[in-house]
Amino acid sequence: MSVRLKLTGTSLAAGLLGLAIAAPSFAAEDLKQVMERRGLTEKNILAAAKTYTPTGGRDEFLAFSSGGQSGHVLVYGIPSMRILKYIGVFTPEPWQGYGFDDESKAVLAQGRIMGKDITFGDTHHPALSETKGDSDGRYLFINDKANPRLAVIDLHDFETKQIVVNPLFRSEHGGAFVTQDTDYIMEATQYAAPYGDEFVPLEEFNEKYRGGLTYWRFNNEKGRIEPENSFTFELPPYSQDLSDAGKGPSDGWGFTNSFCTERYVGGTMRGRPPFEAGCSAKDTDFLHVTNWKKAAELVAAGKIGKEVNGMKLISMEEAIANDLLFLIPEPKSPHGVDVTPDGKMLVISGKLDSHAWVYSFDKIMKAIADKKFEGKDPYGISIIPIKEVLHTSVEVGLGPLHSQFDSKKCVVYTSIYVDSMVTKWDYCEGKVLDQLPVHYNIGHLMTMEGDTVSPQGKYLVALNKLAIDRFNPVGPLHPQNHQLIDISGDKMELLYDMPVPLGEPHYVTAIRADKLKPAVRYKSGWNSRTDTKSEWKTRAGREKIVRDGNRVHVYGTVIRSHITPEIIEVTEGDNVSIHLTNLERAQDETHGFAMYGQNVQLSIEPGKTASASFVADKAGVYPYYCTEFCSALHLEMQGYLLVQPKGYKASGVEAVAGTTYTEADYNKQVETNIATQDVINSVVGFITARNFKDFPPVVALVEDATDQLGFADEAKAKSEAAAGKKDWNNAMLWANQWWQYQVKTADMGLRAKTYLEEHGAVEVKK
Amino acid sequence: MSVRLKLTGTSLAAGLLGLAIAAPSFAAEDLKQVMERRGLTEKNILAAAKTYTPTGGRDEFLAFSSGGQSGHVLVYGIPSMRILKYIGVFTPEPWQGYGFDDESKAVLAQGRIMGKDITFGDTHHPALSETKGDSDGRYLFINDKANPRLAVIDLHDFETKQIVVNPLFRSEHGGAFVTQDTDYIMEATQYAAPYGDEFVPLEEFNEKYRGGLTYWRFNNEKGRIEPENSFTFELPPYSQDLSDAGKGPSDGWGFTNSFCTERYVGGTMRGRPPFEAGCSAKDTDFLHVTNWKKAAELVAAGKIGKEVNGMKLISMEEAIANDLLFLIPEPKSPHGVDVTPDGKMLVISGKLDSHAWVYSFDKIMKAIADKKFEGKDPYGISIIPIKEVLHTSVEVGLGPLHSQFDSKKCVVYTSIYVDSMVTKWDYCEGKVLDQLPVHYNIGHLMTMEGDTVSPQGKYLVALNKLAIDRFNPVGPLHPQNHQLIDISGDKMELLYDMPVPLGEPHYVTAIRADKLKPAVRYKSGWNSRTDTKSEWKTRAGREKIVRDGNRVHVYGTVIRSHITPEIIEVTEGDNVSIHLTNLERAQDETHGFAMYGQNVQLSIEPGKTASASFVADKAGVYPYYCTEFCSALHLEMQGYLLVQPKGYKASGVEAVAGTTYTEADYNKQVETNIATQDVINSVVGFITARNFKDFPPVVALVEDATDQLGFADEAKAKSEAAAGKKDWNNAMLWANQWWQYQVKTADMGLRAKTYLEEHGAVEVKK
Repeated sequence: MSVRLKLTGTSLAAGLLGLAIAAPSFAAEDLKQVMERRGLTEKNILAAAKTYTPTGGRDEFLAFSSGGQSGHVLVYGIPSMRILKYIGVFTPEPWQGYGFDDESKAVLAQGRIMGKDITFGDTHHPALSETKGDSDGRYLFINDKANPRLAVIDLHDFETKQIVVNPLFRSEHGGAFVTQDTDYIMEATQYAAPYGDEFVPLEEFNEKYRGGLTYWRFNNEKGRIEPENSFTFELPPYSQDLSDAGKGPSDGWGFTNSFCTERYVGGTMRGRPPFEAGCSAKDTDFLHVTNWKKAAELVAAGKIGKEVNGMKLISMEEAIANDLLFLIPEPKSPHGVDVTPDGKMLVISGKLDSHAWVYSFDKIMKAIADKKFEGKDPYGISIIPIKEVLHTSVEVGLGPLHSQFDSKKCVVYTSIYVDSMVTKWDYCEGKVLDQLPVHYNIGHLMTMEGDTVSPQGKYLVALNKLAIDRFNPVGPLHPQNHQLIDISGDKMELLYDMPVPLGEPHYVTAIRADKLKPAVRYKSGWNSRTDTKSEWKTRAGREKIVRDGNRVHVYGTVIRSHITPEIIEVTEGDNVSIHLTNLERAQDETHGFAMYGQNVQLSIEPGKTASASFVADKAGVYPYYCTEFCSALHLEMQGYLLVQPKGYKASGVEAVAGTTYTEADYNKQVETNIATQDVINSVVGFITARNFKDFPPVVALVEDATDQLGFADEAKAKSEAAAGKKDWNNAMLWANQWWQYQVKTADMGLRAKTYLEEHGAVEVKK
Repeated sequence: MSVRLKLTGTSLAAGLLGLAIAAPSFAAEDLKQVMERRGLTEKNILAAAKTYTPTGGRDEFLAFSSGGQSGHVLVYGIPSMRILKYIGVFTPEPWQGYGFDDESKAVLAQGRIMGKDITFGDTHHPALSETKGDSDGRYLFINDKANPRLAVIDLHDFETKQIVVNPLFRSEHGGAFVTQDTDYIMEATQYAAPYGDEFVPLEEFNEKYRGGLTYWRFNNEKGRIEPENSFTFELPPYSQDLSDAGKGPSDGWGFTNSFCTERYVGGTMRGRPPFEAGCSAKDTDFLHVTNWKKAAELVAAGKIGKEVNGMKLISMEEAIANDLLFLIPEPKSPHGVDVTPDGKMLVISGKLDSHAWVYSFDKIMKAIADKKFEGKDPYGISIIPIKEVLHTSVEVGLGPLHSQFDSKKCVVYTSIYVDSMVTKWDYCEGKVLDQLPVHYNIGHLMTMEGDTVSPQGKYLVALNKLAIDRFNPVGPLHPQNHQLIDISGDKMELLYDMPVPLGEPHYVTAIRADKLKPAVRYKSGWNSRTDTKSEWKTRAGREKIVRDGNRVHVYGTVIRSHITPEIIEVTEGDNVSIHLTNLERAQDETHGFAMYGQNVQLSIEPGKTASASFVADKAGVYPYYCTEFCSALHLEMQGYLLVQPKGYKASGVEAVAGTTYTEADYNKQVETNIATQDVINSVVGFITARNFKDFPPVVALVEDATDQLGFADEAKAKSEAAAGKKDWNNAMLWANQWWQYQVKTADMGLRAKTYLEEHGAVEVKK
């Protein structure tokens, strides 16, 4: 089909291009007709060309977005803005088996609060691991605001590996932010509360309610947070908000802003003005400046940091005495504090101040060294005056919220909530460069690697909190709207509106796709949550059911298209664990496993071992089956759990076969198989006559096809053995199984053949 | 910014178009450069133009897709292929509060299996309600294969309203399929099992295991399924699969195919060939033909249908005796059975037969009338020979699975799993018209309203089960790939690859978007799950906390930006229910409500009343807050649940304010407010000087802004009253609250102003 765009030579007065499809065999629309029919402008076509990604194409960047109250993380491609995956983090998610298999239940159990399962998270700020301040594509961290928790996702397999609960906080918002070599992950409280589980009346708010800032130690080798090597700064009961860690010259320091430094407690039903009034009454709040490197040393030396609830807590007295903690006034109700790529400046914006403010790190250090303080807060923390640290401030618009950096020197973008726009400005010179309306009420924004030492420029994503009229209506609950903006030129250009269909993302972070090296399979018999060989790993042919009293372990396997075992018999009251290893090596050959009535749903990717445990508390018949459409015989990938009543004795009566087969049936099947083998041979001939080894996807398919054909040989041998004994039933059925494997071989082979045809493979001489 | 595409007059040898952006103020790429940089062909640009939807644009069709094992339904737009919403159906989903608020917990509780909560579903086949065989956009139905359940989603608000459990089945696959006026919804078993909860050994498979087909009665007025008016056909222990209801001339009849009519029971660990071998040994399986209209009459008359587990069960004997049930052989391991738009033919395909078969409904009726049977199955059901009913059969490819119809007469599309392609063919003449490769291993396919009496043509979606190499890799678990295909011409053209990021969709159904009329808000105080006024509806100013022993009901409200009450005091051990009514009328002004430690997360759309119930089993401090970024003061939309220990007595000591204010503070705030009012007035002036009433979105914004300004007046009055009493603290705080409402007013106003500017509003004379 040679369809091509062709210049017609006519152009419309409106500036439209004369552009037609010359199609030999049918009358399709040309581009001009499509534009007219769909009401597209030329600018739209250019935006489409900048974002449209044809089949098999790759995105230049991958974005990792918080899923908000969905408790997930979502991954999308830029510039195509196609969502590639929702990763289950704090919320159980059955497609992934997350929170359904024993292995991931253990991860979620780490996140229990006061012993209770919490089945959601309010994910806020994802952070990618860094090396020397640069995104390295190894790990992703994300926090839960509702219950102060932090999760670690391994980007090797895009799975959640660990959840830690902050043992001091009752709320947090300002996580996750990494130090420049991912030695620590910052997490700050939001709403002040007592540090213990006990009740403290609000009358003692100033004295006993506390904020805080935890530096979680991350073990880069193990890829896990080490709570025992982490520490927390006790902070006043201000509402701490976002943080950022220093980098380059400012490495070793952390910056955490706050709101409601008024320490106001609302009371809408007590005649008191609401929190929103009392928490936004002053003109400035406080930026907290913490020296984490020195603090870590003092804690490690045992000089500061008493253990409270298993967490080393640096008291405000200790922090003050050791010059670890300072405050700087900052504009009213701030949200973002963002360290510039060179680590020399901080950009701060307050939602109720129309300016963005730039503080100089050097000046902060100098003020501290010179003890240039304007007094202390009520808790004795020294306050550095704004005038000592201010580099510049710029009027950026109503409701500035969060800033990210461009690859161009001195260029920063700030989201403007109330004005619903993005302001591009120069933080060196202190001047506005450009403004672009967004739809609507933008929260965070994000540029490519824009919070690292080497921002990549090119694109910006506006995370708009309201979509309102942007999409087809889908009821009172609207999607969010992430808008992609081209920032490669002097002027920002809107490219694409992406609805977010699940959750209200708060923040996104993006990385160059070529920095990621995800796996396509696990080592055989792998526990993907601990990243160790599973104790339940099972090889083909070694499946077994092991009983110990009323504890039953099933060592099973799954492969196209059967589950072994297909029948599991247990007794009412047994504790049953079914462990399944996916024997496939082929990419994307995931099998699922669902069972009636037991809330069992596993996702078993190639190589993985996953386990389902339950109490078989009721006698009965429980069908199970594969939930992934893995082959043409997928529906037949089934089995039965039979829960026998206590004391049940089998009748000893043999089952009568539903259908019986004759020698003629057997011979007919063998004939089919021989014909099918001819098809396979011709496909194999086609492939091997071409330079297929130059195409890795085809090599993988050929490997898989060869595997399947090996299984066919086994079934063929069984078939012939049964035929030798004139057991025509088994001979016929094994012959049919032989054919099933042939079909799977042909499936792979045909896909490989198509690939070669579509990718210009050439004939080779043998 | 006048950016436009312009003809340059030069064209490349390769047929590339000479196309440049003439931009006055910056040097951006032109289309040719973008195509070169991104490796796009002209065909790609045409596909991009056919799918790209600029900001604010609308999709022509909305697709409703099963979310597979995610247990959700997903909604996406065609042709933009942007996912607009995941609707929680069988799986709790916290963003929507689904399974978290009391109201939706009650819906999920309807789906309990043997008293147990099942927290996922394996959703398979969505079906849209129909009137006279045409999609009417009122309701959506979806089934759960893992636990045989059926859910009703109201397309008024895109929420799940009802779940019914099939009391006889232990597995089902073939739901949901509606009769032409949505009087009944068909649901068939998949894996045979006994009809009770009790254990029956597999040796009695032929005698006591059963399939079945339920016709659920749907009350179109109430929008609910009526189990008491539903009935089920007892069927042999074949694995029933998909169904379709007749329409037009075939209305009154249903068609249900099956596989494993061999009644084979596998046993991979017992040396027996697996299910897949024994279940695919025969050349044909059975299509079940049921006369539901006559059956419904006989059941209603009490002539047939014994009640079993609360379901009227038509025994095979009754069905045979009353000519309600017949079998017709059909090709091996079929999946789809699809009635043609005119209701005269059935298209059937078996995954292990390379042909699609077309049966004539007239011929089926004639064969029944003439008693042209070729015998009976082992259960005594008459078998109609294929030759009596066959219209034609066509070789469509390896692994044909499911068919959907075009708007063009006689044109049908069949998905071909093993060959990974779509075959377009003519079912009247029996000839192949076109074939297109897809990527990879297509399951179902879907055309626009292609299963109704009036298919819309235009687009086809291929639901490919494997994505493999189509997208950026995201670990061993891949997204699915839905490919959009243009079917408007003679040849099919691939337009777009859409990754499905969560769940493995099985089937999709689409409807013309203009048939849907979703609401943007609820009536104030609405229980959206029962669609009645909530007993917990609360008006502004009527908030209260009601106690009865240890039962505490909180009647609360939410509005930008505070929750009333902001402080809730209860005693350890209390049973607490917090009922919140969203007082907003503005579109998209949803508020959330999350609380620490209690697994509480609500989504409260405008007008909705939602409730969270929990036992306050541990004394302590539990912050709560709004989880939707609803305004600039969103973070301050907070409160505390204080759980006091039993016997707690307040100390009587008053809290000391964190910050106190003076007359000067008050005056300064008032000054700010007056200045802010000037801004508002100028915006109002701009708007009212233009024809804003011609723009409904602006009218809504103005209404909302007026609301907010009304609240500002209230706060202003309180402020002035406090100032009159020289209570400067309250005077200042209420003055600040007054300003907060002004900011919200300005937010709306500025959005309205931008809208008018962008949409060419004109000045009007007053």
